[in-house]
Amino acid sequence: MCKGMEVKICLIGMGNVGTCFLQLLKEKQDNIRVNFNFNCKLVAIFEYDGALIDNDGIDLDNLLDDITNLRKNQYWISNVKAQDLISTLDIDICIETTPTNPNTGEPALTHIKEALNNKIDVISSNKAPFYLHYKKIQDLAEKMNCLVKFEATVASCVPAISIKKSLIGNTISRIRAILNGTNNYILSRMTTEGISFSVALKEAQELGYAETDPTLDISGYDAAGKLVILSNELLGWSKSIEDVKIKGITKITPHALELAKIDDYVIKHLAIAEENNLIVEPRLVKRDSLLNIQGTLNLIELQTKYAGSIILIGKGAGGFEAASAILNDLISIVKKRRGF
Amino acid sequence: MCKGMEVKICLIGMGNVGTCFLQLLKEKQDNIRVNFNFNCKLVAIFEYDGALIDNDGIDLDNLLDDITNLRKNQYWISNVKAQDLISTLDIDICIETTPTNPNTGEPALTHIKEALNNKIDVISSNKAPFYLHYKKIQDLAEKMNCLVKFEATVASCVPAISIKKSLIGNTISRIRAILNGTNNYILSRMTTEGISFSVALKEAQELGYAETDPTLDISGYDAAGKLVILSNELLGWSKSIEDVKIKGITKITPHALELAKIDDYVIKHLAIAEENNLIVEPRLVKRDSLLNIQGTLNLIELQTKYAGSIILIGKGAGGFEAASAILNDLISIVKKRRGF
Repeated sequence: MCKGMEVKICLIGMGNVGTCFLQLLKEKQDNIRVNFNFNCKLVAIFEYDGALIDNDGIDLDNLLDDITNLRKNQYWISNVKAQDLISTLDIDICIETTPTNPNTGEPALTHIKEALNNKIDVISSNKAPFYLHYKKIQDLAEKMNCLVKFEATVASCVPAISIKKSLIGNTISRIRAILNGTNNYILSRMTTEGISFSVALKEAQELGYAETDPTLDISGYDAAGKLVILSNELLGWSKSIEDVKIKGITKITPHALELAKIDDYVIKHLAIAEENNLIVEPRLVKRDSLLNIQGTLNLIELQTKYAGSIILIGKGAGGFEAASAILNDLISIVKKRRGF
Repeated sequence: MCKGMEVKICLIGMGNVGTCFLQLLKEKQDNIRVNFNFNCKLVAIFEYDGALIDNDGIDLDNLLDDITNLRKNQYWISNVKAQDLISTLDIDICIETTPTNPNTGEPALTHIKEALNNKIDVISSNKAPFYLHYKKIQDLAEKMNCLVKFEATVASCVPAISIKKSLIGNTISRIRAILNGTNNYILSRMTTEGISFSVALKEAQELGYAETDPTLDISGYDAAGKLVILSNELLGWSKSIEDVKIKGITKITPHALELAKIDDYVIKHLAIAEENNLIVEPRLVKRDSLLNIQGTLNLIELQTKYAGSIILIGKGAGGFEAASAILNDLISIVKKRRGF
């Protein structure tokens, strides 16, 4: 596990996040060598229909010159699956970025368990395994003496999870957050333009902020999953998404926003962890509150016992944003394994 | 250096921050024992006119019951100085919170150097030594294989410095910040109430936000010092306060704020580190910008290469706020020394 100058990794899922991660790794590999004294050797890339495996290390320059050539590479093996081959690989860290079913956590969950069972540290950008089976994964990691990191799952690049290390001298008593950029965009537009939910949603879809099927976002399920992870990590809970009281934003009308405005309020879709309860729902927020952020931004407010509120704001989505969170997790794991 | 279950510390300066730190330590000592597996033994407290030294550990409960009894304690020694006695003490970590001259950094600078020369790790809430002699202190610490931490010096409890660990997978390219709560309060009041600088300053003094002699704040010197520390830590620079181009807020008029308002701007006192330059000065900021925070809050915006802006907001001052930053530094040092 990360002994020596070389850290051997595999990537499962080469979609947008996976590809951005490899590009970032390529750009930063000299910097990593100089500042953290290790080389990252990419041993395998798994896709849904096969794998590229090269124990001498896959050449990132060649690969990224034209990623459509992935399946034409001499080391490409068709029709193999990550879960069948992980145990045969000599790797330190497995990076999981596959498209995953939000209700089952698969196939990411299987990949994560298989890696841990083979004593491989894990980094995941998939949140479903963690909002569904947080305790099970953590217990397995502990049993196998492995590290599991997933900073990218909540507000992507914003260090919402790892900030915990910077607040260990304090006590976090409550979390209030805006964890879904799509919903925040829709509500911001409804508020400023007086347009209906359906018009704002269509606009968000045209701009690429909302999916063709936006159900996971607008129902509040996506934000709820992130809230579970955040509260488990920062408040020491062991909840799952079934414990969240969830209300979406579909029933908010221009009229409701207008009424709120009269008393200088806006409506925001908040994710709240407080007194052992998890809630995702539209809430009235004072117009001049720091929670009233615009557009697709994410916000996390940590109420602390000794220092009031500490607020983090940043982009909650994007390929390179998630990739930078993954690289951060990777360097953290290597540092921890080497005790520096 | 932090071997075994016991970590021996001394505190230099028992003013507001020092006292809050001891109270926080008392409150959290069980928590520290359970979660981080060490006991903190307070071996010495130094004040300007003497010291309380007890190698068996000073009883925090007794001490904090009535801190005016400090000098009546059986172990109190009058007319001794920290710099003369540090070398005689068996301690792991020295915590420096004395009132310090902003132009010389003394007496904190001498205390810090003396501790390092005796291979004692240092935590400081005093910024002057670091904005005056950053490189010298870091070089000495490295030579003596010591750790020096000073999270409380910038935006107190807001983890403006330690967030670096959470962004190592990214590249910070620019810092823009509001680092002086007094100035931000004055400008906020001038903007919302249309009052003059002198009236707003008087109000800030009456509320205890501004000192009787507010020069360090309103001249921009205080913010400049914090900016030096932040840029040295986050951008890897080795600057001192002489490198900062500083303009204060004393020349801002209600008329200027009024003119800005017409075009939907406000004037904020920004601290900027960009392209090898350090600047503290009033700047026009769009009214709906995230930089437009109100009151005494501090804000740090980190422009990153791979994830846009990441913003931190929180209280920039206060005894327990600084104390929680110190305790955080303390736990970090112990964790690092023990390799976990």
